Amino acid sequence: MFTFEPIGYVRSPYKTTQEVPKGLGTKHEAEGMLEILPQFEPGLMDIDGFSHLIVLWVFDQLKAEDKLELMGTPPTDNRPHGVFATRSPRRPNPIGFTVVELLYRKGHSLQVRGIDMLDGTPILDLKPYLSSIPQDKLRRGWLAEAEARAGNSL
Amino acid sequence: MFTFEPIGYVRSPYKTTQEVPKGLGTKHEAEGMLEILPQFEPGLMDIDGFSHLIVLWVFDQLKAEDKLELMGTPPTDNRPHGVFATRSPRRPNPIGFTVVELLYRKGHSLQVRGIDMLDGTPILDLKPYLSSIPQDKLRRGWLAEAEARAGNSL
Repeated sequence: MFTFEPIGYVRSPYKTTQEVPKGLGTKHEAEGMLEILPQFEPGLMDIDGFSHLIVLWVFDQLKAEDKLELMGTPPTDNRPHGVFATRSPRRPNPIGFTVVELLYRKGHSLQVRGIDMLDGTPILDLKPYLSSIPQDKLRRGWLAEAEARAGNSL
Repeated sequence: MFTFEPIGYVRSPYKTTQEVPKGLGTKHEAEGMLEILPQFEPGLMDIDGFSHLIVLWVFDQLKAEDKLELMGTPPTDNRPHGVFATRSPRRPNPIGFTVVELLYRKGHSLQVRGIDMLDGTPILDLKPYLSSIPQDKLRRGWLAEAEARAGNSL
């Protein structure tokens, strides 16, 4: 067992999961703030040089009955898939992953674009987003198929 | 505080941190296996359709004196940077992030390329790697500068 404590919290326009855009072709353009705890501010040195950051966070607002579903139907499809092949919150360890665009830093707060977390979400870690897999080498499995079925070429 | 349990373990050719390639321009080509615990096998349904996976894991072999360093000099540079602007293991929550190429699945094990973890590393989560930021929109901060100083255009 591993125990982690938040390094900060997300300030988001979304107060409930219903407000977060979901489904095929969703683009996350919402702006928000990553409020890092003041004692960790030295860890932000030079973060301003990166255009995009990886945010690891906790789905902390799950209800008890929503905790785990190894197979489920995501909002992007009408067929079930294994939880590790989706971004569903109902995973064994409810850790969320979001890539955000860093707009600016102000002290120990980071203004970002691309928020898909709820307001108050605990942040576990920030990392620089460094590289990307070339699009022509990327296969997107059931999601590409669901998009094709939806007549959606996003 | 949040408590997580491993969903599986990494089988890696690397037994010590000294063996893991580091520094500017390092490419991780090592093959290894993600051995997911049998009870989570249903969660792997359809994962085979994705070429690349995100692996979240724990730096569980840190020594006590290595636990946290908010500013440090990474192997890719000779200047210190904030820990959140690096992939250093000495972070407040020692969670590692690796994108691997999925070669094949056999039951509840996944053979992958691009391992940079030690043998026995606990895995917290797997997610499909879905998208990438276009290279022309990506700024890589101090790392790009360190590469330029090294005369390295990787």
